[in-house]
Amino acid sequence: MAQVMFLNGPNANLYGLDASGTYGTDSFPQIEAACMARASELGLSLDFRQSNHEGVLIDWIQEARQSCDGLLINAAGLTYTSIPILDALLAFDGPILECHMSNIWKRETFRHHSFISKAATGVIAGLGVRGYLMGLGAMAELIAERSK
Amino acid sequence: MAQVMFLNGPNANLYGLDASGTYGTDSFPQIEAACMARASELGLSLDFRQSNHEGVLIDWIQEARQSCDGLLINAAGLTYTSIPILDALLAFDGPILECHMSNIWKRETFRHHSFISKAATGVIAGLGVRGYLMGLGAMAELIAERSK
Amino acid sequence: MAQVMFLNGPNANLYGLDASGTYGTDSFPQIEAACMARASELGLSLDFRQSNHEGVLIDWIQEARQSCDGLLINAAGLTYTSIPILDALLAFDGPILECHMSNIWKRETFRHHSFISKAATGVIAGLGVRGYLMGLGAMAELIAERSK
Amino acid sequence: MAQVMFLNGPNANLYGLDASGTYGTDSFPQIEAACMARASELGLSLDFRQSNHEGVLIDWIQEARQSCDGLLINAAGLTYTSIPILDALLAFDGPILECHMSNIWKRETFRHHSFISKAATGVIAGLGVRGYLMGLGAMAELIAERSK
Amino acid sequence: MAQVMFLNGPNANLYGLDASGTYGTDSFPQIEAACMARASELGLSLDFRQSNHEGVLIDWIQEARQSCDGLLINAAGLTYTSIPILDALLAFDGPILECHMSNIWKRETFRHHSFISKAATGVIAGLGVRGYLMGLGAMAELIAERSK
Amino acid sequence: MAQVMFLNGPNANLYGLDASGTYGTDSFPQIEAACMARASELGLSLDFRQSNHEGVLIDWIQEARQSCDGLLINAAGLTYTSIPILDALLAFDGPILECHMSNIWKRETFRHHSFISKAATGVIAGLGVRGYLMGLGAMAELIAERSK
Amino acid sequence: MAQVMFLNGPNANLYGLDASGTYGTDSFPQIEAACMARASELGLSLDFRQSNHEGVLIDWIQEARQSCDGLLINAAGLTYTSIPILDALLAFDGPILECHMSNIWKRETFRHHSFISKAATGVIAGLGVRGYLMGLGAMAELIAERSK
Amino acid sequence: MAQVMFLNGPNANLYGLDASGTYGTDSFPQIEAACMARASELGLSLDFRQSNHEGVLIDWIQEARQSCDGLLINAAGLTYTSIPILDALLAFDGPILECHMSNIWKRETFRHHSFISKAATGVIAGLGVRGYLMGLGAMAELIAERSK
Amino acid sequence: MAQVMFLNGPNANLYGLDASGTYGTDSFPQIEAACMARASELGLSLDFRQSNHEGVLIDWIQEARQSCDGLLINAAGLTYTSIPILDALLAFDGPILECHMSNIWKRETFRHHSFISKAATGVIAGLGVRGYLMGLGAMAELIAERSK
Amino acid sequence: MAQVMFLNGPNANLYGLDASGTYGTDSFPQIEAACMARASELGLSLDFRQSNHEGVLIDWIQEARQSCDGLLINAAGLTYTSIPILDALLAFDGPILECHMSNIWKRETFRHHSFISKAATGVIAGLGVRGYLMGLGAMAELIAERSK
Amino acid sequence: MAQVMFLNGPNANLYGLDASGTYGTDSFPQIEAACMARASELGLSLDFRQSNHEGVLIDWIQEARQSCDGLLINAAGLTYTSIPILDALLAFDGPILECHMSNIWKRETFRHHSFISKAATGVIAGLGVRGYLMGLGAMAELIAERSK
Amino acid sequence: MAQVMFLNGPNANLYGLDASGTYGTDSFPQIEAACMARASELGLSLDFRQSNHEGVLIDWIQEARQSCDGLLINAAGLTYTSIPILDALLAFDGPILECHMSNIWKRETFRHHSFISKAATGVIAGLGVRGYLMGLGAMAELIAERSK
Repeated sequence: MAQVMFLNGPNANLYGLDASGTYGTDSFPQIEAACMARASELGLSLDFRQSNHEGVLIDWIQEARQSCDGLLINAAGLTYTSIPILDALLAFDGPILECHMSNIWKRETFRHHSFISKAATGVIAGLGVRGYLMGLGAMAELIAERSK
Repeated sequence: MAQVMFLNGPNANLYGLDASGTYGTDSFPQIEAACMARASELGLSLDFRQSNHEGVLIDWIQEARQSCDGLLINAAGLTYTSIPILDALLAFDGPILECHMSNIWKRETFRHHSFISKAATGVIAGLGVRGYLMGLGAMAELIAERSK
Repeated sequence: MAQVMFLNGPNANLYGLDASGTYGTDSFPQIEAACMARASELGLSLDFRQSNHEGVLIDWIQEARQSCDGLLINAAGLTYTSIPILDALLAFDGPILECHMSNIWKRETFRHHSFISKAATGVIAGLGVRGYLMGLGAMAELIAERSK
Repeated sequence: MAQVMFLNGPNANLYGLDASGTYGTDSFPQIEAACMARASELGLSLDFRQSNHEGVLIDWIQEARQSCDGLLINAAGLTYTSIPILDALLAFDGPILECHMSNIWKRETFRHHSFISKAATGVIAGLGVRGYLMGLGAMAELIAERSK
Repeated sequence: MAQVMFLNGPNANLYGLDASGTYGTDSFPQIEAACMARASELGLSLDFRQSNHEGVLIDWIQEARQSCDGLLINAAGLTYTSIPILDALLAFDGPILECHMSNIWKRETFRHHSFISKAATGVIAGLGVRGYLMGLGAMAELIAERSK
Repeated sequence: MAQVMFLNGPNANLYGLDASGTYGTDSFPQIEAACMARASELGLSLDFRQSNHEGVLIDWIQEARQSCDGLLINAAGLTYTSIPILDALLAFDGPILECHMSNIWKRETFRHHSFISKAATGVIAGLGVRGYLMGLGAMAELIAERSK
Repeated sequence: MAQVMFLNGPNANLYGLDASGTYGTDSFPQIEAACMARASELGLSLDFRQSNHEGVLIDWIQEARQSCDGLLINAAGLTYTSIPILDALLAFDGPILECHMSNIWKRETFRHHSFISKAATGVIAGLGVRGYLMGLGAMAELIAERSK
Repeated sequence: MAQVMFLNGPNANLYGLDASGTYGTDSFPQIEAACMARASELGLSLDFRQSNHEGVLIDWIQEARQSCDGLLINAAGLTYTSIPILDALLAFDGPILECHMSNIWKRETFRHHSFISKAATGVIAGLGVRGYLMGLGAMAELIAERSK
Repeated sequence: MAQVMFLNGPNANLYGLDASGTYGTDSFPQIEAACMARASELGLSLDFRQSNHEGVLIDWIQEARQSCDGLLINAAGLTYTSIPILDALLAFDGPILECHMSNIWKRETFRHHSFISKAATGVIAGLGVRGYLMGLGAMAELIAERSK
Repeated sequence: MAQVMFLNGPNANLYGLDASGTYGTDSFPQIEAACMARASELGLSLDFRQSNHEGVLIDWIQEARQSCDGLLINAAGLTYTSIPILDALLAFDGPILECHMSNIWKRETFRHHSFISKAATGVIAGLGVRGYLMGLGAMAELIAERSK
Repeated sequence: MAQVMFLNGPNANLYGLDASGTYGTDSFPQIEAACMARASELGLSLDFRQSNHEGVLIDWIQEARQSCDGLLINAAGLTYTSIPILDALLAFDGPILECHMSNIWKRETFRHHSFISKAATGVIAGLGVRGYLMGLGAMAELIAERSK
Repeated sequence: MAQVMFLNGPNANLYGLDASGTYGTDSFPQIEAACMARASELGLSLDFRQSNHEGVLIDWIQEARQSCDGLLINAAGLTYTSIPILDALLAFDGPILECHMSNIWKRETFRHHSFISKAATGVIAGLGVRGYLMGLGAMAELIAERSK
């Protein structure tokens, strides 16, 4: 059974609690539950995590080198500036999908550049929870193709 | 039955014929066939088109205002510079998905900025034909939600 | 009788149909009718055209070299990027007026630079249809002065 | 009877005296006289002023808040740098027209950016005295529409 | 008794009269009165002034060199561009506090840079009239410390 | 009794120990003690914290969403680059004051831009410990006004 | 017999008709005739075309993939901005020569950057019709060498 | 007898009073006296003025159009930003010398660009009062040559 | 015996495990062992550490203020963006050596700027493990000189 | 018989010796011999030189003012930065051709700007030795036309 | 008797020979003669030199460290780019005057920045040979003052 | 015995003579002697040279292609701008070490970019003569490894 890690960066745990509605109306536990359900349907073993700490995210990406076949990541506010996360991802040998709840290119200018993209296989943005679920589906296919 | 238009920009008709492999190995007719099949599964009426002419693409987007519930677009080389296509999309009242075969942020710097994103609901990039099919799936859901 | 061409660029045919109200509430046929009426009052023979195709606009500017005494142009989304239209205008030997329905300098930053201005005699912006009619009036005077 | 103020910035009083011909051949008193005549035809009470002092121009714009229905302004060399004049204009509740004798976008690069435009309803440039008179005509219409 | 001058730049006299509410709801005379009262409590002799003229503000800063122990300044729209005011402040030998009613870094980009800051001891922004009163309190303390 | 959190970023714990004198001569425990005393006078329950870890600061800001009425923050070296802290602050529904011991705009260019300012109600800089105490005073008033 | 296409972009059909003399004094038909004659001498079958439409130029480059051994192109005003033409050229598998009548680096700054150069084997500029003829000569040699 | 005006900008009246020593140790009246003496030796009628007001400097430059054969100007802090002063100088038909007490290119970056230079015949900087006197000497020669 | 700390930033623990070979072929434990051996030869007490957490690195630098005579640091991906690490280093009173396994100026542009350099005594880059050992040698000498 | 000088800049003498193959496989003496032969066919007296010294190249360009009818130059690494060579070329009154073995616009960004182009009649790049020979042919024609 | 060196950079030996007239009409030997005469009047021993070689100019500046009391330099085209000449001048302990025949700020943008200015005491530009003579006069005074 | 060349650029011969102390207190002959001694210990045949002439440095690098196993270079002021030296180094097939006496990233901004780094194996900066000696040691090891 394919192992997949889905990492969420700073403040992702507040999704749905914010009055602005930028990140939709589902709470983070609801998002996690939806992802776990979809992973189950897809036959993926999903490890869904969130941290506000860049270092913890890097630790987890390094951990995934040992244990995972693929990686999904929404680095949130660290997307735009974290070269250490990029470096960790560059050392991961498997498919990587960059996911964003919102369409970051419709927001402030400082959100238009992603260091994550330089290591990602693909990018999905602006589709809310739907994009997370689509990412899981694509990951299942990418891993299946690699293992052929 | 929901009507959807999928527009492909300049040189998309050469996908798969190019030695570089940037855009995968499927030929454009194969990509079209895969999209038509998926649309059929999703219960979408799909109008799949390609043009090398910016003006034709704008004409089609305007045509979609009358006839379509949603729009998918890979503006290819026009993605990075065409404000007229952006303006046409801004006048379209329905979900818009921006799709790219390749991960444009891993390529030359001049491909890192998209005018299409400013009008798009969501963006999918780097996943080849798979991304096109995922886009159709997301579009079907977005239209269904709107019509509720 | 002085011959004048008034060229409208991409998406101008949607003026007034757009919910944003950026370009006023008159439909494009109404704008055209108002211009034809004013031209008639001014004793101008007016050729009022619109195209979404850069190439067609260039063809028309070249055509105007043979047949017209003056040119009005709202290049719309091509205003900001089209060097070929600038080149065509630079080869036109007569007064050129650049018109914009909206005040482009109050909008997004990418609309603050015009290549058309480098060839234009004068610029009128932000006054909606009124600006078009004022442009026709100014053109009538400019042509009359040249023919003295 | 509608009250209108037309403000002219630094060195505008030298128009027509300069050998370069950038600002036409009419002297400033002639320009003023032409504007007064046109205003009279339009049924406007026109207050036509000029100052080389930014502070005086701001004082006058503030004065116009009490006494005027509309404002025309050619801020001349202050157009490109004066944020205080912009702030004063932003506090004026009525139509504002920005006028320039010359086409500023055909001149030195430092004249291609206007702070005035951010507060202006419309902009007219490159048409010499004719542009001033057109501005008065447009102002008469804008005020008439507002008072409906 | 310590002498303090509080200078207000262009359009500050309109505070509270503007519909935008950017600068709060107190009128300028009310702001002045509140400052005079607070100064009195603090044992400061306050000279509270406003001008729309850069030159007048410079004259006053130079005057303060002779007569004042400290200077508070809200240069308003001149904050962002006036090197002459900076030069005058650099020649003032005493504490200088830069005050802004609004948080200028939340507004347009051209308001994010201050020349005044290069000469100021401290900066207070975004706290409306409260910030003015806090500035007076800080000034009283700064002068008291210097005179020890 | 109003609850307030005052967060201090990386290296703030070294204030007063540094030979440069940039941050004054009071040690961090002295600064904390002064703040606790002032808060007590103001009737505020103050939680004064410091961390060198961006992630910890974000955790604390999220914690403040539950427990605090207002937030003061000196993000120190993270001020200039941390979008995750900005995002956490944007999700806090109460007054936020940004405080800096030094006048950051008199220092190196890379300290002239603050991401914190985009979420702050107000900013106080360059006044050393005095600025911290002023910030507490302003916070007490802001909270009192909101609770009316 | 080697097949060669020589594409000319927008407004090239006006060469020699323009008063500025930037593009020499030969008319476009004369340029075409000179190229046909030289091609004949070189044993090349030359297809000499011009269009004001970006899309048509792309269609032709794609057509050349099937029928031609080499490509010469003067993209004129599209040189500086057209990424779609670059993409079409990148998909052409044969020698490409970029030709310009004028020395573009002596002209306006916006003409100093060419997207065509990124796909071209070589570049010839500033030598008028002579440069076109030299380009044909070089093309004949490049094709001959490839066919060895 | 040749008439010459020497204009000094904002804060020049403080030269020599400032502790920094940037502008030498002579007071402004001493500088003026030295210039008057030198002018007398050179047979020039010198009008030596200073103002902190941009508008007054412009008024004086316009006045010099009527009465003076040459102009010397140290626009001080206005050097770097005042386009209105540049415009006034461009309308003056005689030699113009730009003088600076200090070497502005050794100071802050924002002092490295001069709008005055675009209108000046020559520039003298960094030589203190000596540079003023040298400027007077050069002006005497320039006027003498023109009158031949 | 001199005390030295050698800090390694994010992902340094993966050196030698990465397929790219950017950081040589020695594993991180091998690098540590080589450094311990060299330190022993040099008579240095070496504390060799690695963390993926910016905050931990800052804590350690602060700890070094108490316990160490010199500091070596390879901040890895934090080199390019971490102002908090710079601030911590600026508060360290002893020699600091910045070490990089690779020549960062031959890599991506975003690796060409180092905040660490602003606090470092010296920089050694591109020499792999050898550079680490050279750094230790230089550090021994620098400390010896200081203690004279 | 027409006199022509062909100048080669720094490191051109290594052409063909470099493993990268950027500059083709012919050695510099072979390139020189090919040029001498072609010049002979064209009836040109060719002076073919190379230097690694900017100053020597300038001396030679000045020498050519006396003795030569035309100049060809490949300034190599000095192309991108040498204003003194540009100045020397601007003082040469005859046709100048800029030649590059490689297509410099396909290489590093710092090779995309040429100071030589500002003085050159024409530019030939990317065609290796062939481009040198073409340049000689064009030069022969340019000189012949001038001498008519 | 004071020793002075006056260095002239690349192409200065062509002054007066150039058709453009940028550098006046006097030939370089005439300029030298005028300087020698003026130096003689001023009681200076003048060493007037010119070279097209950056290295030679640096050698001479180093030589001047031993033998000269002051240095005048017109680095011509090297002014804008030569950091080595700047470094040599920074090591010269005496007054340095930067002279330019033309007003470099009225010319191409790449001539608006001088590295020489960072080491110069003063700058004189735009006054032709007169500026050279003025520079000698100022140098005589500067040396006299230093020797007091 | 391995042959090594150590090249020093402009003004390096003044090291230790300069009052600023930027480059330490050892004179250049002392630096050379220290290097010769260390080379001798390392079993290297060292050729230690200095020139103020870019061209001479290039000649020497080319000479090293024939005679040397490794190259050390401190290009001094040419580091930041010389593309010809970069090109010469790129054609050298052996280890290259870039050495700087000072930490160039702590100095003026224009010294923060090195063209030499693009060709260098490694970089050592800020360690004075010590860095030179370390460079020799590293070079001995690099050559020894290559010759295995």
